[in-house]
Amino acid sequence: MNKNQALKIYREYNEKILAYYLVLSTTGFDRLTIAPSGGAAYRNKMCSIIEGELYQLQTSKEYADAVLYLSAQDLGEVGNRDISLAKKSLEEVLKFTKEETMEFSLALMNSYDAWLKAKTGEDYSIFKPHLMKLIELSKIRAKKRDAKKDPYDLLLDDYEEGMNKKKYDAFFSLIKKELLPLIKKIDKKKDLIDDSFLYKYYPAEKQAKFMEEIKKYLGFTSDWGYMGLTEHPFTNGFSKNDVRVTVNYDEHNVTAAIYSLVHECGHAFYEHQVDAKYDKYPFLRNMSSGMHESQSRFFENYLGRRKAFFRKLYPKLQELFPENLGNVALDDFIRAANVSKCSLIRTEADELTYPIHILIRYDLEKDIFAGKADLDKLDELWDEKYEKYLGIRAEKPSDGILQDVHWADASFGYFPTYALGSAIGAQLFHKMKEDLDVDALLEKGQFKKITDYLHKNVQHDGALYTFEQFVKRATGEDFDPHYYIDYLKEKYKGLYGVK
Amino acid sequence: MNKNQALKIYREYNEKILAYYLVLSTTGFDRLTIAPSGGAAYRNKMCSIIEGELYQLQTSKEYADAVLYLSAQDLGEVGNRDISLAKKSLEEVLKFTKEETMEFSLALMNSYDAWLKAKTGEDYSIFKPHLMKLIELSKIRAKKRDAKKDPYDLLLDDYEEGMNKKKYDAFFSLIKKELLPLIKKIDKKKDLIDDSFLYKYYPAEKQAKFMEEIKKYLGFTSDWGYMGLTEHPFTNGFSKNDVRVTVNYDEHNVTAAIYSLVHECGHAFYEHQVDAKYDKYPFLRNMSSGMHESQSRFFENYLGRRKAFFRKLYPKLQELFPENLGNVALDDFIRAANVSKCSLIRTEADELTYPIHILIRYDLEKDIFAGKADLDKLDELWDEKYEKYLGIRAEKPSDGILQDVHWADASFGYFPTYALGSAIGAQLFHKMKEDLDVDALLEKGQFKKITDYLHKNVQHDGALYTFEQFVKRATGEDFDPHYYIDYLKEKYKGLYGVK
Repeated sequence: MNKNQALKIYREYNEKILAYYLVLSTTGFDRLTIAPSGGAAYRNKMCSIIEGELYQLQTSKEYADAVLYLSAQDLGEVGNRDISLAKKSLEEVLKFTKEETMEFSLALMNSYDAWLKAKTGEDYSIFKPHLMKLIELSKIRAKKRDAKKDPYDLLLDDYEEGMNKKKYDAFFSLIKKELLPLIKKIDKKKDLIDDSFLYKYYPAEKQAKFMEEIKKYLGFTSDWGYMGLTEHPFTNGFSKNDVRVTVNYDEHNVTAAIYSLVHECGHAFYEHQVDAKYDKYPFLRNMSSGMHESQSRFFENYLGRRKAFFRKLYPKLQELFPENLGNVALDDFIRAANVSKCSLIRTEADELTYPIHILIRYDLEKDIFAGKADLDKLDELWDEKYEKYLGIRAEKPSDGILQDVHWADASFGYFPTYALGSAIGAQLFHKMKEDLDVDALLEKGQFKKITDYLHKNVQHDGALYTFEQFVKRATGEDFDPHYYIDYLKEKYKGLYGVK
Repeated sequence: MNKNQALKIYREYNEKILAYYLVLSTTGFDRLTIAPSGGAAYRNKMCSIIEGELYQLQTSKEYADAVLYLSAQDLGEVGNRDISLAKKSLEEVLKFTKEETMEFSLALMNSYDAWLKAKTGEDYSIFKPHLMKLIELSKIRAKKRDAKKDPYDLLLDDYEEGMNKKKYDAFFSLIKKELLPLIKKIDKKKDLIDDSFLYKYYPAEKQAKFMEEIKKYLGFTSDWGYMGLTEHPFTNGFSKNDVRVTVNYDEHNVTAAIYSLVHECGHAFYEHQVDAKYDKYPFLRNMSSGMHESQSRFFENYLGRRKAFFRKLYPKLQELFPENLGNVALDDFIRAANVSKCSLIRTEADELTYPIHILIRYDLEKDIFAGKADLDKLDELWDEKYEKYLGIRAEKPSDGILQDVHWADASFGYFPTYALGSAIGAQLFHKMKEDLDVDALLEKGQFKKITDYLHKNVQHDGALYTFEQFVKRATGEDFDPHYYIDYLKEKYKGLYGVK
């Protein structure tokens, strides 16, 4: 085998592998958005069969030989990174048999269906056996992948290369130390800002109209983007010019869908703005979760919660809901949209308490994988953590353990990237404000200048670098979570007039 | 190989084949309903790769050997029919190479995209080269499949087993002879019935609400059915309990979407009501087009155009559009919904002129495959046929050659099944009226008794029989198009008071 032959095989296989990904992603998106429930058993089984077909392709000797051969060659910076990720992926896939791969994929799909039924029916017992099975399978799988490595460290690294418990422990210690006292102080002043108008009746149909305004403002256009509806919002990039986001309407919370959409559009632009030149390097389109969340949380918070962001949008929102917002000034709306309070739902949490929601999940996941959690009482442990950190308890499971979809997807180790991504985003935002007059651009509706900046400074390189390298390249400095801490402290101290 | 071994192989392969069908169908449905246009090139290429993977499965020696072995065994009535269809399908697939199969599938997808762009942009030249290519490919493919058989006969048989030009010629001669004179007579009285209120402004959003009422009335529920939006409505059965239909709203024609949905629900119930016992016989779920249209046209016309059908539904329609229909009595609405006139759009045509729209397409397709049509002027030939038979010409291509999606899908030979299906439906309806008090059931909203009747008398057996056998079993008589002719003559003579 020579380099050209190996590359040819590598690319041919990857084109096929990507074809499988596309049809599986599409079927997955369909499944989560519109597919009739009656077809689930058949559909899930059929999808697991296709997963089995994909497995055979990914583990074929010809492909494996090509990857191993290429991993010993110098293919330049881009090629080397791509092959190193391909090799890592190959090694992981080979740890499992076809049957194990199919079974796991089927378990994930069935678990999602059970989670949805449990959440909408407020009955944790429907989901519990599935969750137990996924935890068990995840532990077994982690051991199979690397018996010597701590299983949770392995999972944390899956979602953010280079991260582990030690690093996250340090990160969350800082969060606890710096933010918890401020959260307590602010909680005492929680009635300072009136946000009651946000929770009046906002019919979904009219909220949908405002989503169109947001999409237009952001430049999320129908030639490359589509917005669907799901119980739990997410983004899925099918290809550079086919990116799907979803939202969910809460008719008694007008900002829930707004910030979901803005958040998901942050992900969407990342998927869309990776340079086409990386199409030849399939693994460079798999961006890490932390980097991804740095963009989504960037949109949602560092941009979306600014007054300037709503300068053009707010009058349209008022027009749609004159009975609720007609007499609410933009300043009051924005203050309300930034209210900090100890609340139960992560996706609707304000920026200050948000990392605590993540910390709770991180603590629980650590205990689960260290064998320290009483799995039989996971729902109660959840509620206890909320009580401990935020002083409140869920009164129904949809506000507690059933609120997030991630465990139904066995995405253990994903949650911490939300907080990490927020911290990365804060540092990027600090730099962006030095480079651009962000508020002026937002006020004028020149959002493209902002997405262009993100394209140039972060997104165009896909997964070429680790998050630490990305931060260094974009800001000239090492990653430093103090930007995040400082941003939150300054913002919320100012908003509530506390010290 | 013994029978049990062969059956095992046959079922294992078919399960995989069905898994491919599911993901390809889903990706296809996504493509036609919501997928962003920018992703088309990538998506189409990836789908054709999966078609190639499917091809390899369908043509693998192990599967072919099993099918051939089984086709020489006695597997009972059901098994024999299934294997005979499997064998026919296998022989067809084997006529082409993998590359040819992938190219054809890619050509179909690209052609659809071009058709959509051409239709919405009123520019036939965008679609023309694709159509020319599909005609050429279809001719080449027909010759490869069976060099001795007339190519159009081959295609006609694809969509309705046992049909050919000779039989359709006889059928359409009868239509021409019996119906054209009546159409001419009625055209002279075309202003007798006022239907202008149907063409006022009906916002899509509100039409969508009425679709919910129709779905409820018919029993098309969300646990097994989903309704999407496409330029050209269609139905796709993913599995017994996952059936998709689509509609398209014309804001200046209130009955267009109504009858589209009712039509597609006729297809949908057929897909849904095949007995689960046929799941083991994959080819028995591929119902013929003529039989399928007998059910969809049954819903649309024999049921949907009756006053009794609207007894419960019409007040809801009036409620949604009081400004347009508030002062229109049910009797007047139904008369308007049955107005017969020489019009340009097949899917919106009344029952009487409808078969003439089909005749026009049949004539054109016959000429295309006999090499008698000047392909360069196909759009003009289309218009000339409308002039000849119905006395009107399209003023824009979306009213002419671009109106239907079928040619963009190379479904040459499909159209005649609409007329044949209508005729089958008329005969079934004649029998149903002997067995049930149809109007009483419709008025009371007991639509389930009607779908149960169709289940029992036709649908539960899937594709076990030919259409001629189905008609005989359901009515006790041979297929006889005079039921159709008589129904139309009686109905329209009465409506217009002509002899």
